[in-house]
Amino acid sequence: MKKKGVSFLVAVALMALASCLAAAFDRSPLQDTYVAIDEPENAGISLVTNELFCKNPNLTVAEDFCYKGLNIPGNTANRVGSNVNTVNVDVIPGLNTLGISLVRIDYAPYGQNPPHTHPRATEILTVLEGTLLVGFVTSNPQNRLISKVLNKGDVFVFPIGLIHFQFNIGHTNAVAIGGLSSRNPGVITIANAVFGSKPPINPDFLARAFQLDKKVVKYLQARF
Amino acid sequence: MKKKGVSFLVAVALMALASCLAAAFDRSPLQDTYVAIDEPENAGISLVTNELFCKNPNLTVAEDFCYKGLNIPGNTANRVGSNVNTVNVDVIPGLNTLGISLVRIDYAPYGQNPPHTHPRATEILTVLEGTLLVGFVTSNPQNRLISKVLNKGDVFVFPIGLIHFQFNIGHTNAVAIGGLSSRNPGVITIANAVFGSKPPINPDFLARAFQLDKKVVKYLQARF
Amino acid sequence: MKKKGVSFLVAVALMALASCLAAAFDRSPLQDTYVAIDEPENAGISLVTNELFCKNPNLTVAEDFCYKGLNIPGNTANRVGSNVNTVNVDVIPGLNTLGISLVRIDYAPYGQNPPHTHPRATEILTVLEGTLLVGFVTSNPQNRLISKVLNKGDVFVFPIGLIHFQFNIGHTNAVAIGGLSSRNPGVITIANAVFGSKPPINPDFLARAFQLDKKVVKYLQARF
Amino acid sequence: MKKKGVSFLVAVALMALASCLAAAFDRSPLQDTYVAIDEPENAGISLVTNELFCKNPNLTVAEDFCYKGLNIPGNTANRVGSNVNTVNVDVIPGLNTLGISLVRIDYAPYGQNPPHTHPRATEILTVLEGTLLVGFVTSNPQNRLISKVLNKGDVFVFPIGLIHFQFNIGHTNAVAIGGLSSRNPGVITIANAVFGSKPPINPDFLARAFQLDKKVVKYLQARF
Amino acid sequence: MKKKGVSFLVAVALMALASCLAAAFDRSPLQDTYVAIDEPENAGISLVTNELFCKNPNLTVAEDFCYKGLNIPGNTANRVGSNVNTVNVDVIPGLNTLGISLVRIDYAPYGQNPPHTHPRATEILTVLEGTLLVGFVTSNPQNRLISKVLNKGDVFVFPIGLIHFQFNIGHTNAVAIGGLSSRNPGVITIANAVFGSKPPINPDFLARAFQLDKKVVKYLQARF
Amino acid sequence: MKKKGVSFLVAVALMALASCLAAAFDRSPLQDTYVAIDEPENAGISLVTNELFCKNPNLTVAEDFCYKGLNIPGNTANRVGSNVNTVNVDVIPGLNTLGISLVRIDYAPYGQNPPHTHPRATEILTVLEGTLLVGFVTSNPQNRLISKVLNKGDVFVFPIGLIHFQFNIGHTNAVAIGGLSSRNPGVITIANAVFGSKPPINPDFLARAFQLDKKVVKYLQARF
Repeated sequence: MKKKGVSFLVAVALMALASCLAAAFDRSPLQDTYVAIDEPENAGISLVTNELFCKNPNLTVAEDFCYKGLNIPGNTANRVGSNVNTVNVDVIPGLNTLGISLVRIDYAPYGQNPPHTHPRATEILTVLEGTLLVGFVTSNPQNRLISKVLNKGDVFVFPIGLIHFQFNIGHTNAVAIGGLSSRNPGVITIANAVFGSKPPINPDFLARAFQLDKKVVKYLQARF
Repeated sequence: MKKKGVSFLVAVALMALASCLAAAFDRSPLQDTYVAIDEPENAGISLVTNELFCKNPNLTVAEDFCYKGLNIPGNTANRVGSNVNTVNVDVIPGLNTLGISLVRIDYAPYGQNPPHTHPRATEILTVLEGTLLVGFVTSNPQNRLISKVLNKGDVFVFPIGLIHFQFNIGHTNAVAIGGLSSRNPGVITIANAVFGSKPPINPDFLARAFQLDKKVVKYLQARF
Repeated sequence: MKKKGVSFLVAVALMALASCLAAAFDRSPLQDTYVAIDEPENAGISLVTNELFCKNPNLTVAEDFCYKGLNIPGNTANRVGSNVNTVNVDVIPGLNTLGISLVRIDYAPYGQNPPHTHPRATEILTVLEGTLLVGFVTSNPQNRLISKVLNKGDVFVFPIGLIHFQFNIGHTNAVAIGGLSSRNPGVITIANAVFGSKPPINPDFLARAFQLDKKVVKYLQARF
Repeated sequence: MKKKGVSFLVAVALMALASCLAAAFDRSPLQDTYVAIDEPENAGISLVTNELFCKNPNLTVAEDFCYKGLNIPGNTANRVGSNVNTVNVDVIPGLNTLGISLVRIDYAPYGQNPPHTHPRATEILTVLEGTLLVGFVTSNPQNRLISKVLNKGDVFVFPIGLIHFQFNIGHTNAVAIGGLSSRNPGVITIANAVFGSKPPINPDFLARAFQLDKKVVKYLQARF
Repeated sequence: MKKKGVSFLVAVALMALASCLAAAFDRSPLQDTYVAIDEPENAGISLVTNELFCKNPNLTVAEDFCYKGLNIPGNTANRVGSNVNTVNVDVIPGLNTLGISLVRIDYAPYGQNPPHTHPRATEILTVLEGTLLVGFVTSNPQNRLISKVLNKGDVFVFPIGLIHFQFNIGHTNAVAIGGLSSRNPGVITIANAVFGSKPPINPDFLARAFQLDKKVVKYLQARF
Repeated sequence: MKKKGVSFLVAVALMALASCLAAAFDRSPLQDTYVAIDEPENAGISLVTNELFCKNPNLTVAEDFCYKGLNIPGNTANRVGSNVNTVNVDVIPGLNTLGISLVRIDYAPYGQNPPHTHPRATEILTVLEGTLLVGFVTSNPQNRLISKVLNKGDVFVFPIGLIHFQFNIGHTNAVAIGGLSSRNPGVITIANAVFGSKPPINPDFLARAFQLDKKVVKYLQARF
């Protein structure tokens, strides 16, 4: 690595720092735009994440606020029969600090978006095609299931942090568009987090928690 | 009005109070759901607003989180040739406190959503049909126009508080779906607020501010 | 119900309203104290919740900020062998708006606090007696298990919204004290919310989501 | 009290409730204005506070956003030789939810605004007339005094929560205008809170805390 | 550039990083002070912005919290006949993270502060000299003009995000002092943003939006 | 310093930057964890603070969320007879961004935690051993003392920003555990900040503020 590489890299890092520091929170940006930029890999250092480097606001261009391709169906040939295309700050750098993102979800016939939570966002979903059974479960001690069949043009809300799901109950493909109230909502798929963690959670412990035979727990841990 | 009416009304008011008080801010609700309810008009008192009365959380039903009809095209036969259907807390009471809303915008050929701001939200928009020229202007002193032509499947972001617009530049109808980062984003259409306020702003003042002849200002004030 | 009851009730309601309205958010109260009070049931109306009625700040007394009994062991003779005593705004009315609460957790030998999330709080826990295996799982796609054995005097942090648990791996009772960053953190016990919701989630759907036989799902739904 | 009084009162209360509920937090109002109104005392019930009742937004008038008289010198003939005129939500009801207030401070020659904190606001002060010695002390463990002599036209900042003061070191009157970052910043004058609380703090305790003779503590408690 | 320059630069950058990272949001700083510092240009790299580099808190001095000269009248010899002197984080580095700023506005006789919005702040203004006609317009659909004539000592509030203005209706100079609820409120002057953006907005589009002849739009775009 | 040192340092700094930037605010982290790391002193540069450098989230380990030793009594052989062991982000790097911390306080017989404020946190305290007289004072103009004797198992709340204290009124040691609603609550011990600032506050000024003889003020300033 040459000295020039270093100084360029440092310059980029400091620019990023200078324009990014006010950008750390989803609400109430302190300047108009905080466009995330790629990390300076070309300068010879491999970085962990490209999420939060920002551009000089005077250099932002329209492409920084744009994503193409949300009209393209996702590939649903997988175990659960669904595909989520998330348009968040990773694909629209201009979303940085702005507290919102958009998703397109495709469902094969009888496909599902399995029970999951978004630790940092409420979701509002509208059905473009097909028929979905959707629902969420309220917190302890009630654990009420609030659920509904949605058709084309219906809109439904999944409150922040609650376990929710969508299930395509029609024999055709379904498509939905959703807005989420964070630039980076996060997803925790319950089955994967509980039975598919790396390393696995102690199976004796899970057996008691879920009232399952320890063998079933081990079987599940092998599958996820 | 009978005493019974009073006591029922008071009961409703207190219930509303009891379950609503934690609900005043867009982020970080303190219980799972805060469903807005209609004001108790039937009890004999006409109230100003039905926006923020809430339901006992144990009585919420799926309909409180649902809206139907976002697939229906809006009527664009108006001066600007566009129609905005806003799915906010007014139509989905369960959105109360949840910091997000959804819109469908229809544009006649060459219709426009004229320059406006959302004082309380960023907007993320995707085009379902047609071709739109969209843009926003950054704040003083740069006032840069960041603008782009969007086709089907393209997504664009309008940062909070900035003046922005969409313009259907195709000869067919266009349709877009947008997410906004508030349950009640607010809209200020620039031309209407400046030239159509009630009562009107002093035309001498506006003439100087906009470098227009006073007659032109008066003409505009008559039209808006 | 007598008129006097009405006017007293209204007075109480308005007082509650007047002193409570600024109190709806966990952070940044706008006066020093917002002590929650009981709803005015004696005035003849049964209300839903007593959580958020507040006292005139000039009438608050030390008891409004105090709870007694956190030294008393909880009863762990239940399915999971643990007991959580939550000191939140329900038991200390003065916690209203203040963004924090405290818990005492007792664990029988080999008892557990099963996998759960707090949708509105981070937890910081210290072990007073015994030996606990604790852990949390990060969100998708990594789902890493971060876990550790804690002894007396050890402190551990469970970040907001993530699935976490504690497991008493010793053959004696264990006791822990934890702080949570909300006056009303909420709890979602995963097994109960997924398999014990009322009404139950469609078992075909859960069978596919959890890769379980439908019979096992139905068996679980019967147990929770 | 007549029934009509009750129903009018309830109507007012519900209106207040309806339009006020979204208003509880200093930042991010959810409608344009939340003008506080007087409590409905005329309806026959004396209420505790008039701070947070709000008007129907469509009935607000310019007077709701206006206060008159900040040009009038305050009376500084008191123990500390200063006077603070606070223009907060109590005197401008339209400030409700808007997160800012204004003060005018008059100082007699050698008068002082004694050491105090604002638990909910930063203060930015400009001197209109005279010469002030101002300062604040940083938190533990440094406790650095950051202090400066200010003349006409100078501006100084007192960060939120820190102990600060102003001292007129000139032999003429001084006047300052300050902005505070809350509609209701709160004031804790150190000497009054420590030695003048009602009831007094245990003098043995204070004697040790402040390294003072118990007699001196009792003397101070008698004076404040 | 010498290696020493690099290491010094890196040291400065890291110090800035270390002490600045907690500083990105207007409310709730996490240490007492976050004084912005100049970027390390002397080390040989030209940076984009000097706004948010911070000092080691132990090295802050009183000058970091001070600005001089708000008593000096601004130059109003310009098109609109007014001058705004903004005391924000750019001139008082210690305002970093503290959520407030101060302005002095001078108005020539019949001068105006033309219609504008602050996307991130409410403004509270007091008149020191002269007579101002001030006002703001509420959002759609009402677009009510709330306006008032202010004399010396009067205070007025302009809620966050709404279009507002001041107009000196006296034949003498006027002076006002205002507090704003952000360290960096932002300004969008409507006429400049709409008709003076760079590049200009499509004149056909603006002609329809503002009901103006296209020639008038082009004339305006040439002037702003 | 070798070039390799520089590039390693830069890499670490950029990693820290990349993963830390979203971490600046106590509430609402934007990724699961933001573990603070030591500054890269080994790379040859001594930095001011190690508080806010963060780890790549994929490299976090359980130790990042753990602290050991809260069972060990603190040394109370000092002027006030108490010791506070604070478990904040300085000792548990994983607390970064998570808005909570924990303390253990030991009190010698008749020891005290003298009057102080936490500018950024509410405290909730439970007594493990002994008997404490605790209290807080409300803000101006009431300055009410809210105080109570606590025994083992009692819990008490000290609202954010208010002056409060604990006093061991028993003849045995006392121990308490408290939760605080910030990862970095801050402490301002009143006596130290007022009489022990560096440099000292003008004694004439303090004499008038506290109604003390100037000699007593000077004596106090010498002791603190």
